[in-house]
Amino acid sequence: MPNLSVTAPNEGKAGLIPAKTEPENLECPLGLVTTWLVPNELFYIRNHFPYPQIDMATWSLSIGGQCQRPVAFHYDELLKMPRVTKNVTFECAGNKRSFLTPPAAGEQYGIGAVGNAKWTGVPLSYLLDLTQIDAGVQEIIFTGSDSGQRPDMPGEFNYQRSLPFQKELLAECLLAYEMNDEPLPFKHGAPVRLIVPGWYGMANVKWLTGITASATPFEGPFQAVDYLYLQREDDYQQAVPVTEMKVNSVITWPSRGEVLKPGTYVLRGLAWTGKGMITKVSVSTDDGMNWTDAILASPEHQQFTWTFWEYTWTISSPGHYSLMVKAEDSLGNQQPRVSAWNVKGYGNNMMHQVPAFVPGTPMVH
Amino acid sequence: MPNLSVTAPNEGKAGLIPAKTEPENLECPLGLVTTWLVPNELFYIRNHFPYPQIDMATWSLSIGGQCQRPVAFHYDELLKMPRVTKNVTFECAGNKRSFLTPPAAGEQYGIGAVGNAKWTGVPLSYLLDLTQIDAGVQEIIFTGSDSGQRPDMPGEFNYQRSLPFQKELLAECLLAYEMNDEPLPFKHGAPVRLIVPGWYGMANVKWLTGITASATPFEGPFQAVDYLYLQREDDYQQAVPVTEMKVNSVITWPSRGEVLKPGTYVLRGLAWTGKGMITKVSVSTDDGMNWTDAILASPEHQQFTWTFWEYTWTISSPGHYSLMVKAEDSLGNQQPRVSAWNVKGYGNNMMHQVPAFVPGTPMVH
Repeated sequence: MPNLSVTAPNEGKAGLIPAKTEPENLECPLGLVTTWLVPNELFYIRNHFPYPQIDMATWSLSIGGQCQRPVAFHYDELLKMPRVTKNVTFECAGNKRSFLTPPAAGEQYGIGAVGNAKWTGVPLSYLLDLTQIDAGVQEIIFTGSDSGQRPDMPGEFNYQRSLPFQKELLAECLLAYEMNDEPLPFKHGAPVRLIVPGWYGMANVKWLTGITASATPFEGPFQAVDYLYLQREDDYQQAVPVTEMKVNSVITWPSRGEVLKPGTYVLRGLAWTGKGMITKVSVSTDDGMNWTDAILASPEHQQFTWTFWEYTWTISSPGHYSLMVKAEDSLGNQQPRVSAWNVKGYGNNMMHQVPAFVPGTPMVH
Repeated sequence: MPNLSVTAPNEGKAGLIPAKTEPENLECPLGLVTTWLVPNELFYIRNHFPYPQIDMATWSLSIGGQCQRPVAFHYDELLKMPRVTKNVTFECAGNKRSFLTPPAAGEQYGIGAVGNAKWTGVPLSYLLDLTQIDAGVQEIIFTGSDSGQRPDMPGEFNYQRSLPFQKELLAECLLAYEMNDEPLPFKHGAPVRLIVPGWYGMANVKWLTGITASATPFEGPFQAVDYLYLQREDDYQQAVPVTEMKVNSVITWPSRGEVLKPGTYVLRGLAWTGKGMITKVSVSTDDGMNWTDAILASPEHQQFTWTFWEYTWTISSPGHYSLMVKAEDSLGNQQPRVSAWNVKGYGNNMMHQVPAFVPGTPMVH
């Protein structure tokens, strides 16, 4: 028997965290993320339907609708087009849903349905320009290969989302075929995935197969039923669409319930926002009574990406501590202490709170 | 590019769930457990200290203390001794701690710090008999190779626990060197781990290196400070030791927050207890107002092991449902609706509750 160590094969290992098993919905264990770009195998995975079947011998991406020149391209053709690389953080609109009271329907994500990666692909505008889109087009519809049934209406649906036909927004987007310098993993949407910087993750349609210019608003269920901030069930008249990410932050160390001795520690975490830049992260160790600025500690500080933060905490006495974090962005957005509840539990950017415990020496006898 | 599918290499995968990263504390994603014996790589992992270094060239198990013939054995010698195989479920005493209000110190486990496996090794009684234990011995102390500092007192400690010197209890125990017919994985305590059927997991000392008969009660900190039901901090005079598992049960399907359409479903879960046998599992779909018996659905129904349960649920109308489960055992033990809070958050066997949602057809227009 050789010497024993943690490098032994077949040992249990930490992995992605199932929020739901069918279809697969896996949250990232953020406490294990030590690099600014999340390794592909630790990036969160959110599916609406079972994984699709994709035959690369016949696969193509069609771009058409209200335009002068509908086009279609094979994968190899896309690779030969102009390419762009962007670091983009995105977060599932349902991240932090498990902290809502009462519970809202949907996967009960903790803090880990968020990630930052380097995406490489074709600029969306390059492809749209080829098609010569008609005047009067209002939206661009993106169709994924994934399909299935919904719990709330009969029929079979592909996952489809639209974006408004706004030049600045579309100019930011790309059709990614690489993730962190590797071919885009299948579970993240290979062969090609839309990336919409600054928006919640539902915009980033995976397994893209069609792009359609439309003169009318798209009303598919993932646009007109899901991904709306609903105050009451069926109050769709008042509903506001989920679009850009709200400013948000989390504590990644210590873990919830950590037991520490008096001493000096570096609290760590992440902060991100939609369109702006993170300008300030503040930490409280007394349940939000007093706040101190944290250090923004990322190797790179760019629009559309998250930032690490660090805060040096000296504990001088035993007690129960409530650690909290909040972030602000360059557009003046701040996080609320308690999120505004909504029926489908989207966009919960309430401050993250982590209890920590510093015991005294036990007086056993 | 070949056809794309979920079998692609390097894809993100579900794994054990980190409750704490250092030392490694990993919970089982119970929703992914489909076999009565949990595969080794999915069995939960609870560490008090960093993983130890074990050199098998010099490793031996010493058995001594208050006895006539202290002995020591190499690994190969243990393998040649009489062997016994037992299926044993055990649960971390801190399982379900995250459901306590207010939070209790320690890893915030959900429902997954529990597992069932087939353990093979040397009967503990066989080894104790070899040593001819003295009259007057009160306890047997088990020493693990794992060691480190504690947050609440100075010094370096090995993980050590004792058992009362009671013949029937010790006769159930084994020193396991196999888990599910494979050599015991290092992370589960190789070369040898104590298994105490019916007790919470803290009794199952890993990386065992010494067994010591003692004429006085053991007062190491994992016996006399931790693993006590404490009603108030430092009220150690009134503290009750954590020993046998309480009756407990969980829902493993549906996941929390699941969105379903009207129809018929099979709810699934697990139930277990300490000394007795699970005799009844009941399910409520209306937040505990009405209860119906579930079917005990395990391939084997044995003392010291968990049982699968199933419950067929027909949903006829949309709504918000609160699914709950409770179990009873042959000793008359039942689960409480709300657990009795204790300082260190042990033994929480409160009923597991899972919200589920059945939407109506949305009236979008």
